[in-house]
Amino acid sequence: MDTARPIDTADLQALLDSDLFAAWVRELALRVDTIDGGALTLTLPVAPRHVHGGGVLCGQTLMAAADTAMVLAISAALGGFRPMTTVQLQTSFLRPVAGDSGAAVITARVLRKGKSLVFGEIEITDARGQLAAHATTTYALL
Amino acid sequence: MDTARPIDTADLQALLDSDLFAAWVRELALRVDTIDGGALTLTLPVAPRHVHGGGVLCGQTLMAAADTAMVLAISAALGGFRPMTTVQLQTSFLRPVAGDSGAAVITARVLRKGKSLVFGEIEITDARGQLAAHATTTYALL
Amino acid sequence: MDTARPIDTADLQALLDSDLFAAWVRELALRVDTIDGGALTLTLPVAPRHVHGGGVLCGQTLMAAADTAMVLAISAALGGFRPMTTVQLQTSFLRPVAGDSGAAVITARVLRKGKSLVFGEIEITDARGQLAAHATTTYALL
Amino acid sequence: MDTARPIDTADLQALLDSDLFAAWVRELALRVDTIDGGALTLTLPVAPRHVHGGGVLCGQTLMAAADTAMVLAISAALGGFRPMTTVQLQTSFLRPVAGDSGAAVITARVLRKGKSLVFGEIEITDARGQLAAHATTTYALL
Repeated sequence: MDTARPIDTADLQALLDSDLFAAWVRELALRVDTIDGGALTLTLPVAPRHVHGGGVLCGQTLMAAADTAMVLAISAALGGFRPMTTVQLQTSFLRPVAGDSGAAVITARVLRKGKSLVFGEIEITDARGQLAAHATTTYALL
Repeated sequence: MDTARPIDTADLQALLDSDLFAAWVRELALRVDTIDGGALTLTLPVAPRHVHGGGVLCGQTLMAAADTAMVLAISAALGGFRPMTTVQLQTSFLRPVAGDSGAAVITARVLRKGKSLVFGEIEITDARGQLAAHATTTYALL
Repeated sequence: MDTARPIDTADLQALLDSDLFAAWVRELALRVDTIDGGALTLTLPVAPRHVHGGGVLCGQTLMAAADTAMVLAISAALGGFRPMTTVQLQTSFLRPVAGDSGAAVITARVLRKGKSLVFGEIEITDARGQLAAHATTTYALL
Repeated sequence: MDTARPIDTADLQALLDSDLFAAWVRELALRVDTIDGGALTLTLPVAPRHVHGGGVLCGQTLMAAADTAMVLAISAALGGFRPMTTVQLQTSFLRPVAGDSGAAVITARVLRKGKSLVFGEIEITDARGQLAAHATTTYALL
């Protein structure tokens, strides 16, 4: 991408749709919405394929979306993608996301960008704006 | 399932293939291998759709497999599936799993089965038997 | 305490100084500063007894302070202390707190108060206002 | 210490009693018991100063003991102490440790020693041998 200008949502959407991410992960169909200072927001469609028998969005989808969003937030903070690896990711599940609620909103923030380690936080809110999942994570830049 | 006998690997495979799990999660194609006391082992195929541009199995797949394996391990410990929800899941990523390594092995253990909370641990080893990911988790029985 | 009025910082300081907390924990010498909606702030003195050979506030102190602060934040949210137990606590250490920096500030927030589980988040900032540690936690009400 | 021979429990006890650890942490009065391959065991006395009003060993003490034990386990794996910092530590609290139970046993293991990051696991069992707390952690070598 053009490093002479700040990274924008179209750049991040292009990363998201590239083979930087596994095909199975791209099926989350995340959409990059806004980037504002340290916070990146994305929309996560609540698709039937991600809803389990209990009628709610499955936790596996929430964790995958959190991890994916953070890769983009870090890329934004770095001004472009750099090889990195997730060191750890801890997710708390606060409320179920109803399977017919349309979409959830993901907000990913870099809390600290060190020389080799980056710390971040991800919030996932449901269609009514209530916090459904909260994750914290550490990445290593390679 | 027949509650007059202990739960076996075929019962757990049937749960895994049912709509208890979201269709997207069933695409992990996990196979239940053994159940021995507290430890449940499964095979996770390293399929191209789960490999990212860096040539390794993506972390999203590892977390999804860990969560899914624990639902089965808890079901085994309870003698059958009961509604439950993941409270939190923390995963550490120790080594990459090569995209051409065939399969990984997942071992899920219940560490403590309380009245309403269940604690567990999941190890994922690569084809050479080295620890690739390690997760700990808390579930609430509903 | 008087349940006819909202809990205030003096009530929380009294809890903190009571034998609800172990004597060793009371030596953190935390001071309750403000309570505002969901957020409780406390001051953590950076005392020599809590500084290790590397010249920085030790991580053990940061974790202990985070856990202690959350008990108070939950008590505030419940209108008074109720028996509870920490289910899990995950702390990320973002920056060292210099051993001669005087004091750190702890902000504890309840993210979700369920019927039996309470989720929270704790931030610890250093004297310059930079994020030094970040914790997330789950408590069970007994 | 003498780098011509493997590190032993006396070496580790000397580290534990040195000012590498904050004075407040040394008051845990941990005792190094055995070192066997990857596993280091220590005894944690259940002292009245670490017991809270509910009559059980406080969680703050368990977390502090886990972190401290891992510094020693890493030092053993490295053949001696090296400057390091805790990146994150996640603790799950499975069972209370009774305040009159005498002592708990801590077992710390290095799961993976990388070039700059080290992953570990800590188990704390009560006097009856039951798992009371379980922690996983990441350290950065400096």
